Amino acid sequence: MIFDILTIFPEYFESPLRVGLLGKALERGLLKVRVHNLRDFATDKHRTVDDKPFGGGEGMLFKPEPLYRALEALRAEPPSPWVIYLSPQGRRFNHRLARELSRKERLVLLCGRYEGIDERIRAHFVDEELSIGDYVLFGGEVAALVVLEAVARWVPGVVGCEDSVKRDSFAEGLLKHPQYTRPREFLGYRVPEVLLSGDHARVERWRRERSLEITFERRPDLLREARLSPEDRAFLRELFRKRVRLYLALVHYPVINKEGRKIASSFTNLDLHDIARLARTYGVRIYYLVQPLADQRAIVEELLRFWLSGPGARHNPDRVEALKLVKLVRGLEEALADIEAAEGERPLLLATDAQVKRPPLSWEEAACLVRSGRPVLLLLGTAWGLAPEVLSRADYFLEPIFGPLDEYNHLSVRSAASIILDRLLREVVGHVSGHTRD
Amino acid sequence: MIFDILTIFPEYFESPLRVGLLGKALERGLLKVRVHNLRDFATDKHRTVDDKPFGGGEGMLFKPEPLYRALEALRAEPPSPWVIYLSPQGRRFNHRLARELSRKERLVLLCGRYEGIDERIRAHFVDEELSIGDYVLFGGEVAALVVLEAVARWVPGVVGCEDSVKRDSFAEGLLKHPQYTRPREFLGYRVPEVLLSGDHARVERWRRERSLEITFERRPDLLREARLSPEDRAFLRELFRKRVRLYLALVHYPVINKEGRKIASSFTNLDLHDIARLARTYGVRIYYLVQPLADQRAIVEELLRFWLSGPGARHNPDRVEALKLVKLVRGLEEALADIEAAEGERPLLLATDAQVKRPPLSWEEAACLVRSGRPVLLLLGTAWGLAPEVLSRADYFLEPIFGPLDEYNHLSVRSAASIILDRLLREVVGHVSGHTRD
Repeated sequence: MIFDILTIFPEYFESPLRVGLLGKALERGLLKVRVHNLRDFATDKHRTVDDKPFGGGEGMLFKPEPLYRALEALRAEPPSPWVIYLSPQGRRFNHRLARELSRKERLVLLCGRYEGIDERIRAHFVDEELSIGDYVLFGGEVAALVVLEAVARWVPGVVGCEDSVKRDSFAEGLLKHPQYTRPREFLGYRVPEVLLSGDHARVERWRRERSLEITFERRPDLLREARLSPEDRAFLRELFRKRVRLYLALVHYPVINKEGRKIASSFTNLDLHDIARLARTYGVRIYYLVQPLADQRAIVEELLRFWLSGPGARHNPDRVEALKLVKLVRGLEEALADIEAAEGERPLLLATDAQVKRPPLSWEEAACLVRSGRPVLLLLGTAWGLAPEVLSRADYFLEPIFGPLDEYNHLSVRSAASIILDRLLREVVGHVSGHTRD
Repeated sequence: MIFDILTIFPEYFESPLRVGLLGKALERGLLKVRVHNLRDFATDKHRTVDDKPFGGGEGMLFKPEPLYRALEALRAEPPSPWVIYLSPQGRRFNHRLARELSRKERLVLLCGRYEGIDERIRAHFVDEELSIGDYVLFGGEVAALVVLEAVARWVPGVVGCEDSVKRDSFAEGLLKHPQYTRPREFLGYRVPEVLLSGDHARVERWRRERSLEITFERRPDLLREARLSPEDRAFLRELFRKRVRLYLALVHYPVINKEGRKIASSFTNLDLHDIARLARTYGVRIYYLVQPLADQRAIVEELLRFWLSGPGARHNPDRVEALKLVKLVRGLEEALADIEAAEGERPLLLATDAQVKRPPLSWEEAACLVRSGRPVLLLLGTAWGLAPEVLSRADYFLEPIFGPLDEYNHLSVRSAASIILDRLLREVVGHVSGHTRD
């Protein structure tokens, strides 16, 4: 495989290309890296390659002509190259892309400097614009080295033990398990027993489970595209059951009415059904209906009887599965005591409120909290929202849900609950289904 | 600022540190980079730093002792360093982190090779584990260069024109606008007129708008954390209106019943309200209720009258805003003709189906489609789902929504609609609210 690097600092690459496995692969001719000086394609005697940007501003950018001439010269040689421009505005480079690119015969890696390159070259004479990450560098040179290394690992023979490449982080869409070497005990820290057991199957299972666990904890977003076996999915389900101890409470008292006065709201049938089905889908442990009014409680009890053991149960067994998560309580205290009895600790209270009272958690932070293993009770208000006395007890708040156009914020509690649960758990849902994409 | 790099290949860094602005900053003493050979901290005469992993497998990993001795030696010197281990399992390095790290006096960058380092060093003797991206390299050396460059840009004086750093991609959470230099016309491609106008304010506005536009197109995920002015938000709203031409249809005929037979379903009041409020929140253009039955249509018409011009309108003006998006049609054809009349082209049909018939779009692909500027009609089924004759007309399918535990898939259409709209548009919602986090 051939890499042509186009740069104004060809000397940048001298030492990195001599080192380690990459150096060896170049010596052995498995890879060929040719570094070209963009200045060789300038036409004036000062070998100028940059100019000031139209419209003003500090800094310089690469002129179109030398770039065009250089790319034309490189394209004229066989085999036909794939031209990559490295810039922070590009598509994000990743493991999968590295593997795809390793199937090409020849890559041109164009390294920008200063303010970048003239837009016309980028738009019309480059095949692909890639970014190695969300940060800014002095130039594309180090990014070219990154792409070169990540792609070269996939070229057969470059990494001696190909098994290593297959076990790399991301190779199966997971982060890698921890590794230990001698001594067995170092400053009081021991190597896990299983690794010393000599039981190959147990070691493999331990490694796979640690991989899954680390990925679940640090990068659950990777799970959706990971290659997972039925055993992996079963392990992740168990991990979910252990780590996500999420409860939901739909509060009918105390809430506020349109005028901001404290009231008890009456029951809406579809709140029972929709949110129970949602709770079942997202693995919520119990869905509390907080309702102190006796007549209202009687209605809910009657409905639950109908669906859980009456005619509704025979007609619709899927509904039974959802509605058996519902627990009718008289007040928030009763729900808290119930959770404490089951979990051995009080849950953290996570509240939703259309009016932001305190800095809310970001959705990422809230999702981490829910995956952390602490019991969490998500409070949803009916009517015009939770009363101040409930809000003041919340440990954390979620961001209100706004659309793209304005601050219109009048979703039904059923919609809000759906969106909130999906945002909190999206990264760890869906991977059980087996619809893995490759 | 001081960088200590710990590596088994100190020679790797020779040439990159001599080049460009980084080379100049080192010469001028603005930065100090010291490269340490891990082998100097080995104790045997072969200067061994690696060993085989417990539990078997190919490849070697760094032993704990030399690493420990090296890190202790580095920590013993003032000023106290922040120790970073570079690995694909780490927290993702980005622009914001680069800026934070630039405030430290001294960083130690530990470069792994082979299978990495002994877990005990990682877990107990390192302050932070960082990854520069989702790919695997030959070693941490190139990652250390990336971190060094990205952090160094923030050290005062290193980049001559500090204005450049402030205008970098990500500096305000956006991708950078395109840049042009001479000639004004290159191979028929012209520099945009505005950049030649000499009107500084217009140039600035053009650049800002292109930045917003490129970020909206390529990396809408960045918008949520970007620093946006009221003008930026207004521009993004316009962009949303132009690019997201999304319609929704809730189909009551033809759908299937529990036995799979084709039926017309009856109307559910909360489908009208919940999904209209959702449509309003997410900027859907029209929400079609597809219902051919005359008696059912009469009910819907009566309800719409009550809420749009009757007592409901006075009582709840927010509901008016939502319900005026509702259009009652007799069949799917009527909705399609209506969209075509408004948009000048037929919409793409995006269907949801619990039973996957064809490979569905990933959520990312579907979100791109919705942002692409093509009109899209999202079809939602009532009862037991859309009839085959509707499904067969769909251009694309969405993935079914499963939870983390199993394939339980019995969400209400109200919940499903909420989750789908949020997944399709989450990246471009919420940034209007002004709750930008810094």
